Parts: sequence; structure tokens; C-alpha cells
Amino acid sequence: MTTETLDSFHRGRFHLIQPLGQGHRSGMDAMLLASLVDCAGPCRVADLGAGAGAAGMAVASRLEKAEVLLVERSALMADFARRSVALPGNARFSARMSVLEADVSLAGRARVAAGLADDHFDHVVMNPPFNDASDRRTPDALRAEAHAMTEGLFETWLRTAGAILKPGGQLSLIARPESIAEIISACGRRFGGIEITALHPRTGENAVRILVTAIKQSRARLVLRAPLVMHGEDGHKFQPFVDDLNNGRVAYRRR
Amino acid sequence: MTTETLDSFHRGRFHLIQPLGQGHRSGMDAMLLASLVDCAGPCRVADLGAGAGAAGMAVASRLEKAEVLLVERSALMADFARRSVALPGNARFSARMSVLEADVSLAGRARVAAGLADDHFDHVVMNPPFNDASDRRTPDALRAEAHAMTEGLFETWLRTAGAILKPGGQLSLIARPESIAEIISACGRRFGGIEITALHPRTGENAVRILVTAIKQSRARLVLRAPLVMHGEDGHKFQPFVDDLNNGRVAYRRR
Repeated sequence: MTTETLDSFHRGRFHLIQPLGQGHRSGMDAMLLASLVDCAGPCRVADLGAGAGAAGMAVASRLEKAEVLLVERSALMADFARRSVALPGNARFSARMSVLEADVSLAGRARVAAGLADDHFDHVVMNPPFNDASDRRTPDALRAEAHAMTEGLFETWLRTAGAILKPGGQLSLIARPESIAEIISACGRRFGGIEITALHPRTGENAVRILVTAIKQSRARLVLRAPLVMHGEDGHKFQPFVDDLNNGRVAYRRR
Repeated sequence: MTTETLDSFHRGRFHLIQPLGQGHRSGMDAMLLASLVDCAGPCRVADLGAGAGAAGMAVASRLEKAEVLLVERSALMADFARRSVALPGNARFSARMSVLEADVSLAGRARVAAGLADDHFDHVVMNPPFNDASDRRTPDALRAEAHAMTEGLFETWLRTAGAILKPGGQLSLIARPESIAEIISACGRRFGGIEITALHPRTGENAVRILVTAIKQSRARLVLRAPLVMHGEDGHKFQPFVDDLNNGRVAYRRR
């Protein structure tokens, strides 16, 4: 019986071991999230709630000087992350990656003691669990945990992101459109310069995701950017720019 | 010395007397706001903070059975609204319009006593003052009043809208993108089924406005719709659909 899969991303440039039939399975969301990170020189990146590590690995794969910390609460998923990092096919960047088994919602001294120091990271990325608790299409317990939107989740996670980022550091996340107010509210005074990009499957269709970046301690106004449309006229293939983002060829840069 | 202007909208189908050099001057924002209202049969519409009445008049001009109440606090602007309604060129719909000089922020009995009854309207539209108080490009006092974004304005205005709408009635507003979280938050439990459409000047540019509709007592999820792009390739003329909205030829319907 197959209990896990080996999946390739960025057209085979890196690989991920993921549980089959349990836990969250990463895909395009994680790749688009990773595309929000841009740094030419050395930089420290934390992937909060990293799961098997898809987003963080995509950052390390594209950015040659990025050091990436995968932070994951579930021992099972953290183990998948460690094994994924150790795959021979990921040797190109595995020395720049590490895995921390810790709960993102830890605060204050408990957070620091767990290994998440204040003012330490240039980038924090997160793909938080975003099915709400009433969504019963995912019966599996581990997947339910990964997908369960708990009240105040963004508030808790952005508190941690705000603490561990350097001043001027960048928060990046991907979420559902209905979370937009909760996210902006959780940014509060911790983050400014919020940039939101809606992701639409096709021209004329409702958004299915929002891409959000924000800067710690910025006071700049929120910006609603031009949307990204995934599919072109034929309705099937990805638009070239979205395909580039999905395959780690370019970053989606802030304005 | 010219102190007022006579402006035509919907390609000359209705007219507005507006103060020159003081007060808020209506234009495309009001026309797009009006396009959010759709009803084939008789319906009651309130335009909150109506100014000289552009949005409400645009609704009455396009919808043959709509009865529209313009609600305006400023005696000066309410007077412009009354005189505009009375213009011969507006006779086609003026019998279906009335002007109420009242403060939208009134609550409870004071609001009802002022003429805004509970559960009365099918539609409420608003184009709330949305320059923030720190914007000093508008020195004139009356214009500053019209443009001053006061803390909690959406909360106050949506409380009134929620009270005077029938259950299932529709709120429509136009605002700046940076107000998005405040608007959603003010919808709270009063409104659901929030639909947001970003308005971009050109493809690839940031949004300059958001169009928002919501339904009283709905529990439907927020939707981020496909954006509207004002200008086409040549960069100057309006896109045909936006031009139709701006000129009262079509409604921008909810999903």
C-alpha cells in the first residue's frame, strides 16, 4: 500500500516526499507563495507552518543565497520535511535548509526558547490552514488539522511573523479571498505597505486566492494590485507569467 | 463670478447643479455606484450622503420604477439636490425623487424621527467621504467636510444602512482600496454575501476604487470578483462595458 509520494516541482529542480491520503498536499499555492520572496544577496527566510516544506524549498531552490527555516508543529510533517530536504535531488540547496519542529502560535519567551528569535528573518512566508472548520469535505484528522481555520489564526500567526522579522522585513502569504479582512486586521500596526493581488482562474471569474505581502513597521497604504489570471483563452494552459511563477523562473516583485 | 455649474450625465439624460470651487463634485464614482443597483419592478432606494444627488439620480434615470430618497446632511448640498431634481431636464423621473436633509450617523429613534424608518428600503447606496483627514490637497471647508474620512465612518454608515434596509435588501458602495478591511468589518453580522470588484485604470495598474455590494442578513461568503479595467489599449477611451456602466445603459449585476 502506497503511503507516500515523491513529487517534483520547478520542472524537476526539487523534490518533496508527501504523505498520501493524509495531511495537506502542497502544490501551486506553495509555489506562488514562494514566488513572493525576492532577495539577491544572503537572506534568512522562515516558512511558518511549512508542512512537508514545499514553499520554503521553492524559495531555497530559486534564490541561491537564501537560508530557509521550515517551522512545522506536526512531528509527522516535520519528518517528511527532513526527509525531503535530505533527498539527493535537493542537494543543490539542502545545506541552506533546516527544519524546526515548533508551534507557530508560541509567544514571547516560549517562542524564543523554541528557536524563533526576535528580529531575525528578512522574510517570513506562510500558507496558513485555510479551510474553515465547517468544511467537512476533508475527513482525515491530519488533513483536518492542516486545513482547520481557527478563530484568530491570522492574528496569532502574524504576531509571530511580526516578532521574528527584522524591521523592514517582508511577510508573504497566500489565502482565500474571504480572509482578506482578517488578514489586514491582523497586520494592524505590525505591518504596513500591504500589497494584495487577487488570483483568478480565468478572465471574468471570481478570485480563488489572494497573494499578500506586507512590510514590518511600514506605514505605507494598502495597494490592490492588478490581478493574476491563471489560464488563458484556451482555458487549460497556464498563462506564461503564472507558469514562470509556478516553476520558480521569476519572482513576483513588490511595487 | 461663476459659483455653480450645470453638468450632464448619462449622455444628457439627466442634469445636476453643483457648486463650483466648494463641496464634493460628482462624476464617474457616482455613476459606477448607481450601476450597482438593479431592480425591474418598483423599489425603494436611499442614497446616503447624497451630496447634489448624482448617484441617486442616476438610479432613478435608469430604473423606471425606482423611488429614490437623497439623504444629505449639508443644507447647502441638499439645496443643490432639490434644485437639481426640479430641473426641467429631469422631469422624466423627478416625481420619483425626494430629498431628506438629515445626518446619516443618526441612530435609533432620532434616525426614525428624522425620516429614516427601519426595514424600509430595497437598496441603499453610498459614496462616503473617502479622503482621509490628513489629505490637505482640498483646502475648502465644505469639500473637506465631504472628503474627511472620520474614524469609524463605515461602521456608523453601515449601521444606518443595515437598519433602514429590508431583510434581503442590498447595500452598494464605492470606496478606496485601503478601506476594504474597514468596510468588511463594518458589514459584520449585518451584511453577508459581500461582493467586491476592484476598479483599475489600466491593465497592470493598481486599483483606484473598489465597488462593494452586500445583502442584509445574508450568510454567504465574500467574493472577490473579476476586476473592471477602465481604459483599453489606447489608454484613453473607456472600455465599452465601463462606458455602458458610466452612462446608465446597463447594471453591474451581482453574481
